[in-house]
Amino acid sequence: MTSVTVIGAGNIGAAVARLALTAGADVQVLTRDPAKAAAVDPRVTPGTVGDAVTGDVVVLALPYPALAEVADRYADGFAGRVVVDVSNPVDFATFDALVVPAGSSATAELAERLPQARVLKAFNTTFAATLATGTIAGRPTTVLVAGDDADAKAALAGVVEGAGLRAVDAGSLRRAHELEALGFLQMTLAAGGKTSWTSGFVLER
Amino acid sequence: MTSVTVIGAGNIGAAVARLALTAGADVQVLTRDPAKAAAVDPRVTPGTVGDAVTGDVVVLALPYPALAEVADRYADGFAGRVVVDVSNPVDFATFDALVVPAGSSATAELAERLPQARVLKAFNTTFAATLATGTIAGRPTTVLVAGDDADAKAALAGVVEGAGLRAVDAGSLRRAHELEALGFLQMTLAAGGKTSWTSGFVLER
Repeated sequence: MTSVTVIGAGNIGAAVARLALTAGADVQVLTRDPAKAAAVDPRVTPGTVGDAVTGDVVVLALPYPALAEVADRYADGFAGRVVVDVSNPVDFATFDALVVPAGSSATAELAERLPQARVLKAFNTTFAATLATGTIAGRPTTVLVAGDDADAKAALAGVVEGAGLRAVDAGSLRRAHELEALGFLQMTLAAGGKTSWTSGFVLER
Repeated sequence: MTSVTVIGAGNIGAAVARLALTAGADVQVLTRDPAKAAAVDPRVTPGTVGDAVTGDVVVLALPYPALAEVADRYADGFAGRVVVDVSNPVDFATFDALVVPAGSSATAELAERLPQARVLKAFNTTFAATLATGTIAGRPTTVLVAGDDADAKAALAGVVEGAGLRAVDAGSLRRAHELEALGFLQMTLAAGGKTSWTSGFVLER
């Protein structure tokens, strides 16, 4: 089983770390405050942002504004690794648009900063609660994964499916734009009470 | 019940016309070849594109490239009416992008051409088969509706829910961008066998 590093221990980071543990992965969690990393689960190896990453798969469970700094800090450390962007770069001042350039994506920006990494988009269309429970309305939570490296996508899918969720290859890195649109739409629908923060979209077969 | 005009009698047009009949609406169907309009259902009033529209709600069940011509032809005829854009403006040459400017939408373009109409986006995130059956995997098909006119959205929702489907207000006309991203993503997922043309995304509550 793939080893996983999660940077960030907010709702999504904690849920992804536990999901990876369920899948049988060795899991490292790095946060600014190492106590928060340790608090995620006694089975994780906690550390501080800046420590060497150990995971073959690195999940950046960070808000969009924090991505650039971490990417620059780990430019060498991430080389060759699968790096997963989970962000929804929403303009929270207006809640009416994204802050990335029209037609682009946070993931495309990240991939440009990390040319030696194998960058993927995932976990941005699944609310944290649905990652934690693994289900939405009795169906397995679907994790949509976009990226240009098939082996990287397979590695992440192995973790997701090892935890009993469904992983779906959503295409090339260009589809990160559509995944961010879907993540944003889902957030607006939850905020408006059309779905809930414990639910969302399910991709039926 | 609202009266409905459907322009176009392809898969989506025929499904929307029958859905409106199920909801109890008077339904007019206009096509270039009036025989095709009549063939949709014996209960519709068939006609030819160019005939006066009778519906309070006009559904443009047309491919994106046909929208501008019909909008210009009916600029006066659509004034005050609810005009529904169902299109997914996909670049079918590449199947890798939309043909509308980044950040915009087919619906925004249409609304600019029809300043006197009450333009909505709907039916672009539901494959025709799921409109025809009204269900996806045993759940009511969800029709996401975006637009700036609350009464217009309520009128369309009345038709959709009158036929037993679920209508969800997806926000302002700006959200048509996200609905087109979702429609495109769903098409790529169906083409890749990750979902089917008789299925798709379900918005759970």
